[in-house]
Amino acid sequence: MTIHRGAQAFPRAEYIGRLAAVKDEMARRDLDALFVTSASDITYLSGYTALSDYVPQGIVVQIAEEEPTFILRRSDAPAAIYETFLDRSRIIGYPEALVGNPDRNGYDAVIDFLLESGLGSRGMGVEISNLSVQTAEKFKDRLPKARIVDCTNAVAWIRLVKSDREIEIMREAAAISDAAILRATEVIRPGVREADAVAEIMGTLARGANGKPGTMFKPICLCSSPRTGTSHIPWSEDVFRDGSQINLELGGARYGYCAGIMRTFSIGAPSDRLRRIHDAEVAGLEAALETVRPGSTCSDVANAFYRTIEKQGFRKETRCGYAHGIGWLEPTASLKDGDMTELTANMTFHLMLGNWIDEDFGYVISETIRVTKTGVEVLTNAPRQIIQV
Amino acid sequence: MTIHRGAQAFPRAEYIGRLAAVKDEMARRDLDALFVTSASDITYLSGYTALSDYVPQGIVVQIAEEEPTFILRRSDAPAAIYETFLDRSRIIGYPEALVGNPDRNGYDAVIDFLLESGLGSRGMGVEISNLSVQTAEKFKDRLPKARIVDCTNAVAWIRLVKSDREIEIMREAAAISDAAILRATEVIRPGVREADAVAEIMGTLARGANGKPGTMFKPICLCSSPRTGTSHIPWSEDVFRDGSQINLELGGARYGYCAGIMRTFSIGAPSDRLRRIHDAEVAGLEAALETVRPGSTCSDVANAFYRTIEKQGFRKETRCGYAHGIGWLEPTASLKDGDMTELTANMTFHLMLGNWIDEDFGYVISETIRVTKTGVEVLTNAPRQIIQV
Repeated sequence: MTIHRGAQAFPRAEYIGRLAAVKDEMARRDLDALFVTSASDITYLSGYTALSDYVPQGIVVQIAEEEPTFILRRSDAPAAIYETFLDRSRIIGYPEALVGNPDRNGYDAVIDFLLESGLGSRGMGVEISNLSVQTAEKFKDRLPKARIVDCTNAVAWIRLVKSDREIEIMREAAAISDAAILRATEVIRPGVREADAVAEIMGTLARGANGKPGTMFKPICLCSSPRTGTSHIPWSEDVFRDGSQINLELGGARYGYCAGIMRTFSIGAPSDRLRRIHDAEVAGLEAALETVRPGSTCSDVANAFYRTIEKQGFRKETRCGYAHGIGWLEPTASLKDGDMTELTANMTFHLMLGNWIDEDFGYVISETIRVTKTGVEVLTNAPRQIIQV
Repeated sequence: MTIHRGAQAFPRAEYIGRLAAVKDEMARRDLDALFVTSASDITYLSGYTALSDYVPQGIVVQIAEEEPTFILRRSDAPAAIYETFLDRSRIIGYPEALVGNPDRNGYDAVIDFLLESGLGSRGMGVEISNLSVQTAEKFKDRLPKARIVDCTNAVAWIRLVKSDREIEIMREAAAISDAAILRATEVIRPGVREADAVAEIMGTLARGANGKPGTMFKPICLCSSPRTGTSHIPWSEDVFRDGSQINLELGGARYGYCAGIMRTFSIGAPSDRLRRIHDAEVAGLEAALETVRPGSTCSDVANAFYRTIEKQGFRKETRCGYAHGIGWLEPTASLKDGDMTELTANMTFHLMLGNWIDEDFGYVISETIRVTKTGVEVLTNAPRQIIQV
């Protein structure tokens, strides 16, 4: 019996358009094939979001073929048939004998496909930073006549600029993020265990908002006193206490697209120190947003923030954010000093102003934003306050 | 102001014992230093579970030093001080200038440390499979006199055998897994959205069981009709329907240690086909469990399962499980034909009997198990039934 294609978040035409942009880049680099292994790039080019990238898998884009070919473990092929726009003839499941086998693995199936497709002596792009040394050597050894070109982040640079439909989906994700912050506001209370609050917040991320369920989302970070100087602890076994500060980072997700948001909570009145950094950061956030428009650079946005908070006696060591979309952090443009990437309409960023000032003190605020034709749209909408509970 | 060490899941002596085993292996390979980058290996050697491994980080074990050195991004260093048993002098935060910098990154900080520690011309182990081509070349280029040895999975083989305290923690995680299956039994109903059921199930994974909260857990897979032939779709936007089958995989977690479980649900009476595969698989599961004891091999366990279900007219293409503990799948022993790893007491496995038989039909059952001195302890305890709701 067969499985059929499920509901699709994007029309086929949108994927064909994305592939056309990829093929333009391939032509520019004189490549006949591009092997794409980043899970987020695979989502972008096919719609696949299943969690199978702990074994070898990837998409081969051929310049001469309309649809790419997705090569993955045979037991995951039905998920590809269900989730992606690809014709089932474009989905190749490699046999289980290649799993956990030290001699031949799924990358051999990919190389077999390249050889059988007559691509063994052509220009071929790979995302070299995603490949282990052994895998890179396997490509070189088994494709000795191919001209192998590093195309790390080539697809990621293309997906930096979103389509209107992608923006719509990120708005849905952002509404879920806002709902989760609101839920956090309801459940963070003295005497409540962090785990119980997280259960409720994650519940909202799954249930979604406005009738749109969440899809698989990234881990929550909830760093409360005495851990507000840390940024990546998911949550602890502690109970919230009077006077605790809580730094929360989360993001709703739809079809793999994320919309990050950070807010700082205070149980009881915030300390003067917390108020001062909050006031500086909100002023910096507003200054940064005012610079966002086509033609500004990532560096401009970051420096607007840095200059504003420095006037108030603060500094931030880490960057001010990054390109944001599928899979959270996109490995391309950074909102930091010196990143001269020019903003264009429908780029999206996590304007991430978390500031870990001292070992035992940090403050977080962030928004997911879109560059518009004339300025900025802030996709997340929770109040820009220290949320006092 | 400083952050102090938080509550620890393991006593210092336990980490020192783990390190002693690692140093024995290093001595066997004539290595003065070992650079450990796998997030799960880092957890094993230090207790660190924060989610920062998207930037370079790693632990350097030196054969001549009692404690290893953890080198990570400066903004993550407070989390290492809080979470790990390490003295703060053993935690080195590298500056933000090394993040998102194409020329120098966190691995340069590691190499600087190795050079400053006089290890530049010694035997040095690295987990080569975890390093990109560029990073491996950086090590070769900047440490031309070192004898670099691939130690991929060297620490993972050591952590295959758990301590009694690790087993205790996995029992706590397994109790959370059982509670989550019970919660699923309560909330999977016709007319309910998958996302709403997932919200409740995840809620239980966070809240935990027996007064022990869950810590960050791995994504749930919930593959319901018509997706039961798939294994890695987290959940969909669908509503459960009368007659639906639901394949659920989840795992409670404590301090990074997972305890996976899979169960198959049926809304209304299961089909004959589902009953037949269930009966065969439970018989196969029992046969597999009967072979588990010190001296049996992984291959023996798998073949006991395969032989039993084959007698009933079924076969399973994928392996029957894998070493299981920190971070879910341990990349060492597999319960599959031909894996001659000999079982010893306190090895733990996810006996994973998910069977994706047809594009549109699969069945799942699994248990987390421990090898005892005389046989097996099944850590997960949910009823071995098709759970009819």
